[in-house]
Amino acid sequence: MGSDSSRNVTIAMIARLAGVSVPTVSRVINGRSDVSPQTRERVEGLLTQHGYRRRSPAGRRPGSALVDLVFNDLDSPWAVEIIRGVEDVAHASGAGTVVSAIHQRTSSAKQWLDNMRGRSTEGVIFVTSMVAPPLQAELRRRGVPVVIVDPAGVAPQEAPTIGATNWAGSLGANQYLLGLGHRRIGFIAGPPQLMCSRARLDGYRAALDAAGVAIDDALIRPGNFYHESGYAAGTDLLALPDAPTAIFASSDQMALGVYEAVRKRGLRVPDDVSVVGFDDLPEVRWCSPPLTTVRQPLAEMGMLAARTVLRLANGERIESPRFELATELVVRDSTAPPR
Amino acid sequence: MGSDSSRNVTIAMIARLAGVSVPTVSRVINGRSDVSPQTRERVEGLLTQHGYRRRSPAGRRPGSALVDLVFNDLDSPWAVEIIRGVEDVAHASGAGTVVSAIHQRTSSAKQWLDNMRGRSTEGVIFVTSMVAPPLQAELRRRGVPVVIVDPAGVAPQEAPTIGATNWAGSLGANQYLLGLGHRRIGFIAGPPQLMCSRARLDGYRAALDAAGVAIDDALIRPGNFYHESGYAAGTDLLALPDAPTAIFASSDQMALGVYEAVRKRGLRVPDDVSVVGFDDLPEVRWCSPPLTTVRQPLAEMGMLAARTVLRLANGERIESPRFELATELVVRDSTAPPR
Repeated sequence: MGSDSSRNVTIAMIARLAGVSVPTVSRVINGRSDVSPQTRERVEGLLTQHGYRRRSPAGRRPGSALVDLVFNDLDSPWAVEIIRGVEDVAHASGAGTVVSAIHQRTSSAKQWLDNMRGRSTEGVIFVTSMVAPPLQAELRRRGVPVVIVDPAGVAPQEAPTIGATNWAGSLGANQYLLGLGHRRIGFIAGPPQLMCSRARLDGYRAALDAAGVAIDDALIRPGNFYHESGYAAGTDLLALPDAPTAIFASSDQMALGVYEAVRKRGLRVPDDVSVVGFDDLPEVRWCSPPLTTVRQPLAEMGMLAARTVLRLANGERIESPRFELATELVVRDSTAPPR
Repeated sequence: MGSDSSRNVTIAMIARLAGVSVPTVSRVINGRSDVSPQTRERVEGLLTQHGYRRRSPAGRRPGSALVDLVFNDLDSPWAVEIIRGVEDVAHASGAGTVVSAIHQRTSSAKQWLDNMRGRSTEGVIFVTSMVAPPLQAELRRRGVPVVIVDPAGVAPQEAPTIGATNWAGSLGANQYLLGLGHRRIGFIAGPPQLMCSRARLDGYRAALDAAGVAIDDALIRPGNFYHESGYAAGTDLLALPDAPTAIFASSDQMALGVYEAVRKRGLRVPDDVSVVGFDDLPEVRWCSPPLTTVRQPLAEMGMLAARTVLRLANGERIESPRFELATELVVRDSTAPPR
């Protein structure tokens, strides 16, 4: 009976006993910090007293555990790196990784929820900059732990998020270009509504400013992270009367668009212009010339997300609502001193 | 009792009743053709009589279904395309897609089997050229349907395999180069132990032969599908006294290696040499210049694999032990008439 009754302890029961709302109990279970210490203590006491332990390893059949990894779309070049990291950690802990794409469509998200209802999940990792509020509410209602891998970096979310150090990455890359002797450095931005775009632009400005190089707004161009916008911005920059000798693109795909603009103009990378990207997608080491870029540790971000969601599933508290993993400048053949 | 007893019908029981081996019953369930009609009829009769239906949609909780998608490694640039296709079909049919990497290690495959044991799976899709015989045997013993997505194409497998038309793809690409006026076409091969490498080489030979162009063995170079081997072979070909005016590489990664060899020699694609790849990885449309290549329909191969494994799980027979989906020549900017 003992184990049966403990299995029947629901979040709703605990909420009733504690005199708090169901979302508050979920917040405690999920290790969120926005709960008063008194409430947390009362709820945690009741959870312990009634033997509530979310799908603890001891309580489930070995190997039955699943972690959900949800993308908006699987066509992002990021996807496979993140899958690799999540799968690595989940596999080692005996859990399967269920990969889904919900295509930012409400109907598809609903179907995913329906599919998920019939099986247990330790928790859900979203790879996105924004999880739809109704979806978050539904998962909270069910007490399912959520972690967000957010390479783009938006405003704080309800769930813990994992990102990379965008400002520092951009700073370091632009300092490297300055160190090579470049003074006219073009900058191609990401979408301004994403915090990571702003962070990368600010890192660029900080590098130039610290080196005493005046910021020329004509060298700063908008982009949307995609290849075409890098091509367009690169074409514009190279057509300037006083064209830049180096271009920093806020994404690898835009950097490859700059390559194409350089080629179409009959110029060469890095002889005529140095190019730096941001992401370190697997393929940029094979482009010609191999791209100097700021590595986002996507697989490691996936690994940390899996570890975090498994810890939450186990009732552990986590240390911070956001983790940023360090970027790293990877120098290849697309950068050289200016002529 | 009725539904309970039907759940207890095992493949071993059916085998005993039919007087055949367990693998034979598995073969019937999996729709394989290498079973005599009499045996098939007897086994199918017993399966029906005893209500054996593998995890039929009616018999499970909605949404509890899972399809396993197993890679050797998730670092293949193919991986995400195949995941996308499998997920699309599985999602639509209410099944989750569990993605795993077993790293060609026995210990890892064993752990994956252990993880899988605790949950149900409709069936397993392997993406590989070779599934280890003990693993196949174990899945057969358990009556789990298996489908192999095999872009490389090896000898016949025990399970149904899905590939692409390698010979026809290579033939068409080389006919295209001949049509542009090229007569000295270099060929970079894949590993000779893979049937797809041989099929691509034979397609090249057939195209030249049909056009009355003599085959020059000096223009045929070994490779292993990876970037470095394309770079090495491209470097060798361009150094020939009578260098080719076009190079067909048996993989996109090798084609990008040729790009780098062309660049290092101070030449240009396609002005000095045309380059064609094989695969159409997502990134080759963004390389500079965008690559002309033979598209393998990887997402569609994943979709067909998911449909096939769900049909097998449903007790349906499939039409053929191997399906080959058509490749398609995608003409971009890396090909031009010879100077």
